[in-house]
Amino acid sequence: MANIFGQGLHEECGVFGIFRDSNSDVAAEVYYGLYALQHRGQESCGIVVNDGGVMTGYKDNGLVNEVFDHKVLTSLGQGNIAVGHVRYGTTGGNTRANAQPLIINHIKGSMALAHNGNLTNAATLREELELQGSIFHSTSDTEVIAYELTKQRLQSPSIEAAVSRAMKRLRGAYSLVLMSPAKLLGVRDPFGFRPLCIGTIDGGYVLASETCGLDAVGAAFLRDVLPGEIVVIDKDGLRSITENCLPCPKSLCVFEYIYFSRPDSVVEGSSVHTARRRAGAMLALQHPVAADVVIGVPDSGIDAALGYAAQSGIPYGLGFIKNKYIGRTFIQPGQQQRESQVRIKLNVVGDTVRGKRVVMIDDSIVRGTTGGRIVRLLREAGAKEVHMRVTAPPFLYPCFFGTDISSHDYLVAKHRSVDEIAAMMGLDSLGYLDPASLELIPDNYRGGICTACFTGEYPLDVSEAQDKLELEKRLSRKIE
Amino acid sequence: MANIFGQGLHEECGVFGIFRDSNSDVAAEVYYGLYALQHRGQESCGIVVNDGGVMTGYKDNGLVNEVFDHKVLTSLGQGNIAVGHVRYGTTGGNTRANAQPLIINHIKGSMALAHNGNLTNAATLREELELQGSIFHSTSDTEVIAYELTKQRLQSPSIEAAVSRAMKRLRGAYSLVLMSPAKLLGVRDPFGFRPLCIGTIDGGYVLASETCGLDAVGAAFLRDVLPGEIVVIDKDGLRSITENCLPCPKSLCVFEYIYFSRPDSVVEGSSVHTARRRAGAMLALQHPVAADVVIGVPDSGIDAALGYAAQSGIPYGLGFIKNKYIGRTFIQPGQQQRESQVRIKLNVVGDTVRGKRVVMIDDSIVRGTTGGRIVRLLREAGAKEVHMRVTAPPFLYPCFFGTDISSHDYLVAKHRSVDEIAAMMGLDSLGYLDPASLELIPDNYRGGICTACFTGEYPLDVSEAQDKLELEKRLSRKIE
Amino acid sequence: MANIFGQGLHEECGVFGIFRDSNSDVAAEVYYGLYALQHRGQESCGIVVNDGGVMTGYKDNGLVNEVFDHKVLTSLGQGNIAVGHVRYGTTGGNTRANAQPLIINHIKGSMALAHNGNLTNAATLREELELQGSIFHSTSDTEVIAYELTKQRLQSPSIEAAVSRAMKRLRGAYSLVLMSPAKLLGVRDPFGFRPLCIGTIDGGYVLASETCGLDAVGAAFLRDVLPGEIVVIDKDGLRSITENCLPCPKSLCVFEYIYFSRPDSVVEGSSVHTARRRAGAMLALQHPVAADVVIGVPDSGIDAALGYAAQSGIPYGLGFIKNKYIGRTFIQPGQQQRESQVRIKLNVVGDTVRGKRVVMIDDSIVRGTTGGRIVRLLREAGAKEVHMRVTAPPFLYPCFFGTDISSHDYLVAKHRSVDEIAAMMGLDSLGYLDPASLELIPDNYRGGICTACFTGEYPLDVSEAQDKLELEKRLSRKIE
Amino acid sequence: MANIFGQGLHEECGVFGIFRDSNSDVAAEVYYGLYALQHRGQESCGIVVNDGGVMTGYKDNGLVNEVFDHKVLTSLGQGNIAVGHVRYGTTGGNTRANAQPLIINHIKGSMALAHNGNLTNAATLREELELQGSIFHSTSDTEVIAYELTKQRLQSPSIEAAVSRAMKRLRGAYSLVLMSPAKLLGVRDPFGFRPLCIGTIDGGYVLASETCGLDAVGAAFLRDVLPGEIVVIDKDGLRSITENCLPCPKSLCVFEYIYFSRPDSVVEGSSVHTARRRAGAMLALQHPVAADVVIGVPDSGIDAALGYAAQSGIPYGLGFIKNKYIGRTFIQPGQQQRESQVRIKLNVVGDTVRGKRVVMIDDSIVRGTTGGRIVRLLREAGAKEVHMRVTAPPFLYPCFFGTDISSHDYLVAKHRSVDEIAAMMGLDSLGYLDPASLELIPDNYRGGICTACFTGEYPLDVSEAQDKLELEKRLSRKIE
Repeated sequence: MANIFGQGLHEECGVFGIFRDSNSDVAAEVYYGLYALQHRGQESCGIVVNDGGVMTGYKDNGLVNEVFDHKVLTSLGQGNIAVGHVRYGTTGGNTRANAQPLIINHIKGSMALAHNGNLTNAATLREELELQGSIFHSTSDTEVIAYELTKQRLQSPSIEAAVSRAMKRLRGAYSLVLMSPAKLLGVRDPFGFRPLCIGTIDGGYVLASETCGLDAVGAAFLRDVLPGEIVVIDKDGLRSITENCLPCPKSLCVFEYIYFSRPDSVVEGSSVHTARRRAGAMLALQHPVAADVVIGVPDSGIDAALGYAAQSGIPYGLGFIKNKYIGRTFIQPGQQQRESQVRIKLNVVGDTVRGKRVVMIDDSIVRGTTGGRIVRLLREAGAKEVHMRVTAPPFLYPCFFGTDISSHDYLVAKHRSVDEIAAMMGLDSLGYLDPASLELIPDNYRGGICTACFTGEYPLDVSEAQDKLELEKRLSRKIE
Repeated sequence: MANIFGQGLHEECGVFGIFRDSNSDVAAEVYYGLYALQHRGQESCGIVVNDGGVMTGYKDNGLVNEVFDHKVLTSLGQGNIAVGHVRYGTTGGNTRANAQPLIINHIKGSMALAHNGNLTNAATLREELELQGSIFHSTSDTEVIAYELTKQRLQSPSIEAAVSRAMKRLRGAYSLVLMSPAKLLGVRDPFGFRPLCIGTIDGGYVLASETCGLDAVGAAFLRDVLPGEIVVIDKDGLRSITENCLPCPKSLCVFEYIYFSRPDSVVEGSSVHTARRRAGAMLALQHPVAADVVIGVPDSGIDAALGYAAQSGIPYGLGFIKNKYIGRTFIQPGQQQRESQVRIKLNVVGDTVRGKRVVMIDDSIVRGTTGGRIVRLLREAGAKEVHMRVTAPPFLYPCFFGTDISSHDYLVAKHRSVDEIAAMMGLDSLGYLDPASLELIPDNYRGGICTACFTGEYPLDVSEAQDKLELEKRLSRKIE
Repeated sequence: MANIFGQGLHEECGVFGIFRDSNSDVAAEVYYGLYALQHRGQESCGIVVNDGGVMTGYKDNGLVNEVFDHKVLTSLGQGNIAVGHVRYGTTGGNTRANAQPLIINHIKGSMALAHNGNLTNAATLREELELQGSIFHSTSDTEVIAYELTKQRLQSPSIEAAVSRAMKRLRGAYSLVLMSPAKLLGVRDPFGFRPLCIGTIDGGYVLASETCGLDAVGAAFLRDVLPGEIVVIDKDGLRSITENCLPCPKSLCVFEYIYFSRPDSVVEGSSVHTARRRAGAMLALQHPVAADVVIGVPDSGIDAALGYAAQSGIPYGLGFIKNKYIGRTFIQPGQQQRESQVRIKLNVVGDTVRGKRVVMIDDSIVRGTTGGRIVRLLREAGAKEVHMRVTAPPFLYPCFFGTDISSHDYLVAKHRSVDEIAAMMGLDSLGYLDPASLELIPDNYRGGICTACFTGEYPLDVSEAQDKLELEKRLSRKIE
Repeated sequence: MANIFGQGLHEECGVFGIFRDSNSDVAAEVYYGLYALQHRGQESCGIVVNDGGVMTGYKDNGLVNEVFDHKVLTSLGQGNIAVGHVRYGTTGGNTRANAQPLIINHIKGSMALAHNGNLTNAATLREELELQGSIFHSTSDTEVIAYELTKQRLQSPSIEAAVSRAMKRLRGAYSLVLMSPAKLLGVRDPFGFRPLCIGTIDGGYVLASETCGLDAVGAAFLRDVLPGEIVVIDKDGLRSITENCLPCPKSLCVFEYIYFSRPDSVVEGSSVHTARRRAGAMLALQHPVAADVVIGVPDSGIDAALGYAAQSGIPYGLGFIKNKYIGRTFIQPGQQQRESQVRIKLNVVGDTVRGKRVVMIDDSIVRGTTGGRIVRLLREAGAKEVHMRVTAPPFLYPCFFGTDISSHDYLVAKHRSVDEIAAMMGLDSLGYLDPASLELIPDNYRGGICTACFTGEYPLDVSEAQDKLELEKRLSRKIE
């Protein structure tokens, strides 16, 4: 669903790392990398610079260009390795303690850690650790990972050996970028839920959640980190540890194509933009309709609308203008003006829809209320018919792998038929993408995707994950 | 040209006003109205609320959602009339003194004034006023207008009579929204350079530079203010004074369609989005080329690209992703990384252009340097050919009516042929829109447009306007 | 009365100016000068630097060290003349438009103006000016002065001639520092209500409201500006214009000694600290009492307490600790915790007063409520008796010369006897300084002082001043 | 030495806690308590509120009234227990990670901890903990204490039992305030280096570093926490655990009287103000001199000067005015203007010293450079002679118990005789307090004081403390 007023889906993070031969202004490169990954998390961000083992970091709530000004970036100094993180927090509260990267001081040195994903056994691990005397400053999984890494590090000859051992205990989705005094590491869980890619630049290396992060600093794409792989980068170059790679099929989150990633990114060999066009084209085949114009709900619906239009032969039109002057401090209209909430952020281009039968493409429907308001805006602007096509199947099951589709109850599709939803939203017709076509969306990737939120078929046992919800309730507090 | 790092064209202002039957939270409505007009000026903004003649205002440098938080909005109190302003300042310096609206205290009461445009005889009028003892706190035309209004007000029975007299002395482009203790007025210069429209809401009225401002507050479009008209709104309703309307043809700035206004706005009866599509379609007819994909440079090039594609039959593709997390505090890459400047803000969607012959549509070329960098980005991404089409003719003459096309010297087209420019930018071909087609861009408007920046045919004598440049030099200082 | 939570007396301004032979970092010198004069105004401040006629300024609400950081100071550039201002605003609202210095652009150039004082005929002059078409952006007298100066400047051969003519029209209290492109001027009204002194530094000159401003920049005290004098400083040195000096006696505000000025300043040849000690000593003679310890209410009461102690032979003791971590953002206790308001800012040193008969010295009593709370604190701490001595007579009349003793009604002494006030405040005895001794407070100054707020004997006709209160009501709005 | 530009001595913290019968706005009470304790630490501050076991906290760099505004205080919610902390950081860098209180989540619940002092075996304990897999987010002792408490908590039936066990492992100076879900605890190390007192309010309890913190919220002083005592406050009232109390003599830091504590506080039964007067009186006996006036260097020298004056019969005079508009953002003069540094913050009252033989009292001499500048200021102002008297003996040894007298090398007295120091500072004579009189300074306290920084006689083995300096070097980084 269109992310109007933050009511759409959210993922939790973007990560970035860079390794250079010698000291330079790596903080600025992380800054531009995070800026390109900003869409993956707008709650908080941070950068840590490594200068010969001394790690200097800064993190705070806010967008990259709000948290980092020239003075702060300069204060991070020069270094040859650096990592960064952008985070989306589900609470919206003041959770500065959960910002990343995490700097950890342990007996063998220091470490900085940035994490994208969600552990399913975080509560179990946390309880074990607490029983051994560990104390936690935050509620994030990342601190659990940090403890596991530190525990293994004490008994391991190297950071990569410690990571490999720790991976045997971590369950769930995690793409990690971490650095020790002399190394930069990239790690991806064996199921490959979240993306992580490698680029090269002037003999150095870059790790990023998406290729658009590589592009932002002028790095050339090398390859994706494999599911289960540990990539170790140091002065001797890049080497790979694959002992945790599993024979199981990959479980890439399909929403990386549908919604999360930037259209100019290439995830696992497939262009995100092209994948969305294909999703739109498949919708045209699965749910054809006689209409005069195809429009997309910004931002992700636009790519799919182009695909629907091309496949169906119905002309594409610019249906909406989204106000681009977003900011954390925007004052939202009060509850009594809910209709205005949409109008202020999203305005209909009247000429495109007046007197026409309109096909509107969006990426998902969560609660259906914002979508219903958009439909009313179209009708006010003179649309004769409004047919909605959605580039995903209905949400029916919670996600435990790093998105916030976590509660059954507010999902509109849980207890309603498609026709009921269409009626509720004031639509002339509604069509969801067939779950079977999901794996066809990325044209060059055939590794297996996770469709658990539509089908309930989780790639791994998620029984422990339920405990986490209770843990979060127990820890429901703001920590600064 | 794409407004990357603020290097494109700029207009100076957006204005907004509202009149309600009784006191209410009009400040919030102006806030949302200005938020919709934010694209017309990002330097400073302000709101003034009128509560029975007591005018309370706040203005500062920054975007609407930066300057106004809940506390500031609340401090403006309730009222039944309010006006607001967004401003683009050409200097970029700290010119808070030039922010608007201007509150003026004169002997017959108070007045608040918001102005979009540029006077050609401001220097002359200012000198006259200074010789009579007037003092100026700012360098803006608006203070000159305020003095002229005040002088006339002393000898006039009403504010509207004063405005009418003052209009006889003002030369150039001005769309004004002003309020006296009991009235809201909308004024447009006799040539109609800048737009101004009227909406109705719950028995009250709204004035806005563009219809998207009406939409944002849920007002219904009534009509445009006529060139030369004074619209007076008070408790007795709306009435029109047309004694300054001239028989001359209108001179609407064609860039309101091509670049300045929001695509969802309707200016003088013509949809901006549709006008841009028509410009693209005309380019396809005037400068056809054999190609595989048509792409647009965000934001305004996208509308035109859709038109070019539809007319030519070449498929439209998403060529670029523009980073939307803009903000005043973004740290730009240093001068030695000029190529990065574009990359960070604008990334190519590789799948769209790889191995293809590309037609790229943009709205204008000012210096050609940013455009050249974009071309290189496309070639790096694998474009086989790059053909640029521009939805305007070449700039050859300075504008004195409210845009910053003010100096001959930096205009790339002044001393170069089209082929030379194409070579300089690394293009395979380049085509500008024929000046003769400009008046065909808006489909429902045939009132006359200003094309002076292309043709040098100024709708009025601009000899006095040159003095202004010298005046600005004399006053070159920051005032807070 | 102790200025706890801003409830004491307030003056309106401090001014500072510097003239150097050649360009240097004069902004920093004004910064330190204003920092030393901060006690004269905490609402807003500003600095204007003059670099060969180009005036660059910055001003805002806040303390000197809040408004000016390194970046802002640097942005003011270098110059050879600069002026600055600190202001206390009586409203407490957002009155940034009233901040000074004022930069004025007129036909003969520019001018920057900083003003300390209050005109009694401001409303009259303003009405005249408004009838001639002048418009006002602020509600301050300073803009009236600016207009008068500008009007005269048009008909005068020099800025000093214009000032001299304007002085013939201005009535009331004004100490001005102003600069033209090439000159720095210091001006004092013919009655000399507010101080203004001259210092020398490295062949250059400094003007400041108080000598502590000279000390802060290492300037040597030269002399005070004479009442009615215009001091002109330019590349030829300093010269004096005395044509507006009157034969009338001076009317220096006695509160410059009692409360406003800093104890380390020397005003009109008399040390402020010593003057306060003398006031304390006179109280000991006029209102002796058998007691064990003399304490002062910080800050100004402490000097006087030392004098009372020395004269009476009763030991001086440290009675209170005032919390020094003041700041604009301090959250005051709610209304229901009024007693706490005092306690948080001012704590009794129990050892000093326990079981003792205490003489407490303060500089004034306005409403008596804060004083009453202080008395209760002393009794809670074990004071057996509390005798209050006040270094001024009771306030009975409004002040029109730059303090905020402007309303009859809230003055506790207006309708009560001394005994009634003592009872109301819970005192064992209360003694005010005899009005006749006021002129003896400064030991080296015998020029005449203004005692109008005690006696109603105004040095000049104040009938026009009443109009100003109505004017302010008419203009009661916040302007930013 | 006068704390001009932060060059004097510094202590590390102030702590505050409150326990109420039922939920109320305890955050505001901690705010006012910390505001009163602000002199003990200006680097960072924090508050944690406990609402039925859910702990909500906020902390940041800055003064209490900078970090906490109305919105932040409100966001902490209501509760019945709360703790707070003000901290002085020795580095001055961005060490937000070291701010307190610390919230710790462990298996048996949560805990919030605020600490004043310094462990001598922190490095040893930290290494032990790291070897067991503990990870550290900060460089502060407080995190070490938190781990020790948590480790013991896992094996203890109650929080107080855990504290008691942990105390057996902690060496050095610590006054702690901590809270579990249902209890507020106050803890003082067995030597009693740092103060901690108990107050009562409406049936509830308050803990504070100094009595001025009790006064600020209207609490009545009950008693000091005993060295080695654990005070446990819960719904059943207050009880004491004294099993860690040692028979050794107490070791209260004498600088609590001389410099750190506020004069209105009563530490261990003795008034700080009176103690300082006694120190001044003892100086008069030990180092008499023929002089005309006694002055004190603000702030702490003033109390002692009153004592010197009373004992010697030489009149007390106000020697200096200290600018009170301090703030973190004040721009200090550059290095080449070192003399100005003092002048801007501290100005001489010329009338007091001109032509006189002056005795100047200060609390200490660290490097002697600031003191030397002050002497020059006095001579410039006309002082005939300047005799300095210091209310402490010369510093000769580093302190390991919570002040920053940590390096031998910069202490002026280490390699110079008193006469050499006097000559270096431009003094006519110099006298330090005899170490033997230190224990006589507090009139009601005879428990033993720590004089290690003068005598090298440390109350406990400090050999491990040296390791800490190396640890800090290893961890020399900024963490946010």
